[in-house]
Amino acid sequence: MAQLARRPFSEAEFRDRLVETQQRMEEQNIDVLLVTDPANLYYLSGYDAYSFYVPQILIVTLDRDQPVGVWREQDYRCATETTWLDDENIILYTDAYIDSEKHPMQFVVDLLSEWNSMKTIGVEMDTYYFSARAYTALEQALPEGSLKDATGLVNWCRSVKSDREIEYHQHAARISERAMTVGVETIEPGVRQCDAAGAVYDALLSGTKDAGGDYPAIVPLMPSGRGTGSPHLTWTDNEYEAGEPVIIEIAGVVNRYHSPLTRTMFLGEPPAEAREAADIIINGLEAALDAVEPGVTCEDVELAWREEIEGTPVEKESRIGYSTGIGYPPTWVEQTANIRPGDETVLQPNMVFHMIPGVWFDEYGIEISESFRVTNDGAEVLADFPRELIVK
Amino acid sequence: MAQLARRPFSEAEFRDRLVETQQRMEEQNIDVLLVTDPANLYYLSGYDAYSFYVPQILIVTLDRDQPVGVWREQDYRCATETTWLDDENIILYTDAYIDSEKHPMQFVVDLLSEWNSMKTIGVEMDTYYFSARAYTALEQALPEGSLKDATGLVNWCRSVKSDREIEYHQHAARISERAMTVGVETIEPGVRQCDAAGAVYDALLSGTKDAGGDYPAIVPLMPSGRGTGSPHLTWTDNEYEAGEPVIIEIAGVVNRYHSPLTRTMFLGEPPAEAREAADIIINGLEAALDAVEPGVTCEDVELAWREEIEGTPVEKESRIGYSTGIGYPPTWVEQTANIRPGDETVLQPNMVFHMIPGVWFDEYGIEISESFRVTNDGAEVLADFPRELIVK
Repeated sequence: MAQLARRPFSEAEFRDRLVETQQRMEEQNIDVLLVTDPANLYYLSGYDAYSFYVPQILIVTLDRDQPVGVWREQDYRCATETTWLDDENIILYTDAYIDSEKHPMQFVVDLLSEWNSMKTIGVEMDTYYFSARAYTALEQALPEGSLKDATGLVNWCRSVKSDREIEYHQHAARISERAMTVGVETIEPGVRQCDAAGAVYDALLSGTKDAGGDYPAIVPLMPSGRGTGSPHLTWTDNEYEAGEPVIIEIAGVVNRYHSPLTRTMFLGEPPAEAREAADIIINGLEAALDAVEPGVTCEDVELAWREEIEGTPVEKESRIGYSTGIGYPPTWVEQTANIRPGDETVLQPNMVFHMIPGVWFDEYGIEISESFRVTNDGAEVLADFPRELIVK
Repeated sequence: MAQLARRPFSEAEFRDRLVETQQRMEEQNIDVLLVTDPANLYYLSGYDAYSFYVPQILIVTLDRDQPVGVWREQDYRCATETTWLDDENIILYTDAYIDSEKHPMQFVVDLLSEWNSMKTIGVEMDTYYFSARAYTALEQALPEGSLKDATGLVNWCRSVKSDREIEYHQHAARISERAMTVGVETIEPGVRQCDAAGAVYDALLSGTKDAGGDYPAIVPLMPSGRGTGSPHLTWTDNEYEAGEPVIIEIAGVVNRYHSPLTRTMFLGEPPAEAREAADIIINGLEAALDAVEPGVTCEDVELAWREEIEGTPVEKESRIGYSTGIGYPPTWVEQTANIRPGDETVLQPNMVFHMIPGVWFDEYGIEISESFRVTNDGAEVLADFPRELIVK
């Protein structure tokens, strides 16, 4: 049921998603939406392949009962194997458009022109796979004023999960627990960082008996020593050293749904200041989790954290969490709600967040995180893993 | 020596790269170059972290003897740990610019304005991490006509490798050989695809005794059965089935340098037509490799393939290869020279290509590839792995 599958959702669920997207388009006076974010493509069509390094465009109109997808010719089978689209709605461009003076967006404009759909066209201005060139290709080929920023339109449809999506998050959390266990067991002085990364990846992908693991949008982040002072350094083939801190930030993934989890460990006795900081972070994290319930806002949740840590040596300027779900490289961040001051998003049941109050000092950092689902009874923490500074 | 290192290149090598970039800028009448492609950032600055999901901008001017990097505040340590930049050339923006109405490019414009550098500004229009929004933020803040397309400017500097870069490619090829061996040994009927993917990833990352493995820009592509009909499907947790074909496309990576390698195997006796197709592909591949020498063009190499396969049942419309080297998700393609008709790039010693004449039929596909370095003696194939259809 929760297996990695070529077709993890029913056609009915895709239709619901399409209808909600069309409603938001109407509200925003958008006639045609050009979807380019691979997570949004997956959400609306099911398309799932590592082919997003070439332009892929899903066209949603108000009147069609399926999106129309435009892909590279050689990816035809990816579309037939993974999407719910009828064959007539799978449209292919040739390799003449790859690394070339012709851009696939010109192809899209020709299509819109044939359909007589040259009205207000929504584009995802701030997404990774809608390049400046894609934008100017559209701008040059369309009447002035046709384009409208629709960044986040589909992302917001994704923010409240269906029960099926939650099921995938829950299975992904089982994988996170397992991979974290493997990481904690494997990492010790004298082990090469790359070997530990290999073992953690193996655990993330082999997953559990019930559900295999899909690839994470972000590689396991396992900085050590001074490297823990920045959250995004990847591994080297140096050996871990006695006494140093190691952060393990990973996400189990099932059918592209991520359940991130972070712990910090010390390979030896941590400094007293680190123990103290970890306690403060855990208290703050728990205060924030306790504040979660439908109807409160993201900034309310952040305030609970802030009040809890007030007067302690811990400071934190950046957001302490964000909405998560479907992810493709380079991120599993949903780019909608953020747990930070000023974010007035109201929590609803079946929203999923990754709360990660990382704190970085001059010489090292500490991160302890949980992913949770909003329920009527408060936060349901997805992974069951001891919430503590790990000392080995 | 070839280890995964935080500083894999000397300052002298970075200076050479900067000078070549500045020369190309002068030739193209560009005063300021805004580099946003993570591979180009790495090439010019050494910056290496999984943080490219937020805007990162490396500013190259004609008069400065270092680039200036603009990163998110929490990534400061990534910059100090991995780049050759002086501290004054590491500039940070706060989280107020993340998922926000303010865009880091406005921050960059303020900087250029302070420097009085509002002249012709080159931007990488067709790269993954220069979004339409980044472009319009610049366009709105700069005098009209300031922006010029500089896509590929740095990529072309990267196309001829130094001996040190070649060394990393060679070590990466050792890792490719090892991971391919693990893939071929692991994959068999009854094994879950995700478990095989985990084992291959483990081999790619643990690497060899001499050099650990870095993460590949593209996940191992291991489609099976009908899935081999498209090159970019990823794994499920279904079990491999007796008789079906499996494609394994992987790349060992050392210090971000990729040496891709592809083989096709059958879990049982292949159809006669598959054996025939594999022989044709191997003959074509070898004819193309034999055509490689300094002074010939990419299209000459493609022609050698095309002439060899003429009159056979194998057809191939898309490119048969491309320049490769540094890669970050979503691709290890260098986006410069392509081995295809019309590409008149002249081969030079120490260029590196991945030649991958994949051929897809209705029911399955076959891909057999090699990465090679151009030398004065012709193509030096990087990996040493039997070039054949694998039957298990």
